[in-house]
Amino acid sequence: MKTHTLLMPLDMHLHLRDGVMLENIAPLTAYSFSGAIVMPNLVPPVSSLDDLVAYKERIMAAVPNDYFEPYMTLFYKNYDRKFLESVADELTAIKLYPAGITTNSEGGVSSFDIEEMRPTLEAMIELDIPLCVHGETDGFVMDREAEFMSIYELLASSFPDLKIIMEHITTKEAVEMLDKYDNLYATITVHHLLLTLDDVVGGMMMPHNFCKPIAKRPEDLDALLSVALEAHPKVMFGSDSAPHPQDKKESSGCAAGVFTAPIALQLLCEIFEQYDKLDNLQDFVSDNAQRIYGICPEFKEVTLEKREFVIPKKYSSVVPMYAGQSINWAIQGVD
Amino acid sequence: MKTHTLLMPLDMHLHLRDGVMLENIAPLTAYSFSGAIVMPNLVPPVSSLDDLVAYKERIMAAVPNDYFEPYMTLFYKNYDRKFLESVADELTAIKLYPAGITTNSEGGVSSFDIEEMRPTLEAMIELDIPLCVHGETDGFVMDREAEFMSIYELLASSFPDLKIIMEHITTKEAVEMLDKYDNLYATITVHHLLLTLDDVVGGMMMPHNFCKPIAKRPEDLDALLSVALEAHPKVMFGSDSAPHPQDKKESSGCAAGVFTAPIALQLLCEIFEQYDKLDNLQDFVSDNAQRIYGICPEFKEVTLEKREFVIPKKYSSVVPMYAGQSINWAIQGVD
Repeated sequence: MKTHTLLMPLDMHLHLRDGVMLENIAPLTAYSFSGAIVMPNLVPPVSSLDDLVAYKERIMAAVPNDYFEPYMTLFYKNYDRKFLESVADELTAIKLYPAGITTNSEGGVSSFDIEEMRPTLEAMIELDIPLCVHGETDGFVMDREAEFMSIYELLASSFPDLKIIMEHITTKEAVEMLDKYDNLYATITVHHLLLTLDDVVGGMMMPHNFCKPIAKRPEDLDALLSVALEAHPKVMFGSDSAPHPQDKKESSGCAAGVFTAPIALQLLCEIFEQYDKLDNLQDFVSDNAQRIYGICPEFKEVTLEKREFVIPKKYSSVVPMYAGQSINWAIQGVD
Repeated sequence: MKTHTLLMPLDMHLHLRDGVMLENIAPLTAYSFSGAIVMPNLVPPVSSLDDLVAYKERIMAAVPNDYFEPYMTLFYKNYDRKFLESVADELTAIKLYPAGITTNSEGGVSSFDIEEMRPTLEAMIELDIPLCVHGETDGFVMDREAEFMSIYELLASSFPDLKIIMEHITTKEAVEMLDKYDNLYATITVHHLLLTLDDVVGGMMMPHNFCKPIAKRPEDLDALLSVALEAHPKVMFGSDSAPHPQDKKESSGCAAGVFTAPIALQLLCEIFEQYDKLDNLQDFVSDNAQRIYGICPEFKEVTLEKREFVIPKKYSSVVPMYAGQSINWAIQGVD
């Protein structure tokens, strides 16, 4: 059987939630990844040292059997330097949400006033804390990310020493930005390497393919594939896996989020093999991230096998992307 | 109380379905409209004289208490002239669907071969039968209608004496086409005068706002409003009201269709009043259609009152658009 082994795979953008959901889903990520950047958009958001430490403890308690490193993040506010110094050892990045742009982001940034943000961002530079950004305006849904490019340009040019990660990019405009500023990086999800808006509302309406940022146009998908498949040195895999219970998805007001954590590596193998680029997957799914973030996960290898794998219809209360569909790659030991 | 009376309101694009659904929803349209162009996309589609006559009888049986005229349509195929002569007295128009483009359209047209279509379309010209068209390609969901413009141009220029109705238009490209060919007309729904894609997937995902053609961009909405509010002489109201049971909408593969039949006139009053164009509503909702189609409904007046109206959460098994929301216009006698 054909196999493909990945070393220390990393998910650089993950929602682990809390409580029972955390307990149900964290082991699914820990099984196949060495670590993950954990998003802070709980209710209330993770914004203090106590929050950070306690959330990390709850995550570790949920994954007792596997080596797994949760790289913690703080919800961006205009923090002072003293506070950032006190939390720097406990976090890997700070995540900025424009206010109200996605699930539990109500307390985010409502205007990008560079002078107001300067003390925080300069302290982040000195403490070597990257800024992860959900880059969408509140404009028309298909334009939100492209419209946000001017804010990325403002941040990147105003703070050239700040490491800025454009999270879960979905457009050719964001791809083009990568080569324009040295300090701009990006994560790309697996679902944005597979879906366009056609897969959300082009046939029947598919709530389990519905996420923010929404999947865009075919030419955007092509642009994302071009940098992911080449493992462009500034892009990293980040699943943005975002579980919601089935009844919150299949309802009259469906929550945004695609659940891919337990199937992400399998789908990535399928995509990269399809384009004859399996050799680049290691960089995309781990090495680029290690270099960009300067992180060194403990040794862990995950072997995938080329055999039929039927994606489960549910993981606990959550319906994954492509539920019930058959794909060609599986993780060793997982049926 | 402010009132507004409409004479012989007409819905020039309506899905009445069949069976129990027909019995439940037909009275809701018959209460407020004088008549409606009834779509033929049943399973199997309405495509014979017997189908037509029997379906009309079932519709009339479902609306015993109101004056209501179902203007019947046939599902487009390349019919011969003799057949069309035999059915001409029983129908008002023929509806063309590209194959597979929407609910129950599998038997539609798969290629627009003008020479193959010529005998049918020339017979329709001689028999004065308008051609109603669902104008979408099978391209990317946001481009399907704009891409179809070349087919409208081909049809309109090849058959300048054929009356062609661009059904439920949603784009500025279709609006621009109205003044380009004398024989192109259009229907516009009420939901496409209110929604953009933002109302479908811009916040939470809203299955009850999901339809084909999908609601488009803000500039498309503006273009539709411009011709509807002025009651452009070539545009008519057609609701495209398309009921699906609640469990088919709030599911993992949600059917396309917005149910507006019982609230359409109320919403139209609200929109036209908001733009200070109530005086144009009569043309949009009846007079233009009477002139374009050459139909003369019996006298019927429907009076709307300016008072709070809370849209019901359900009509039998069907959730309407804006369910539970409060609007400012109601039909006299309907709470």
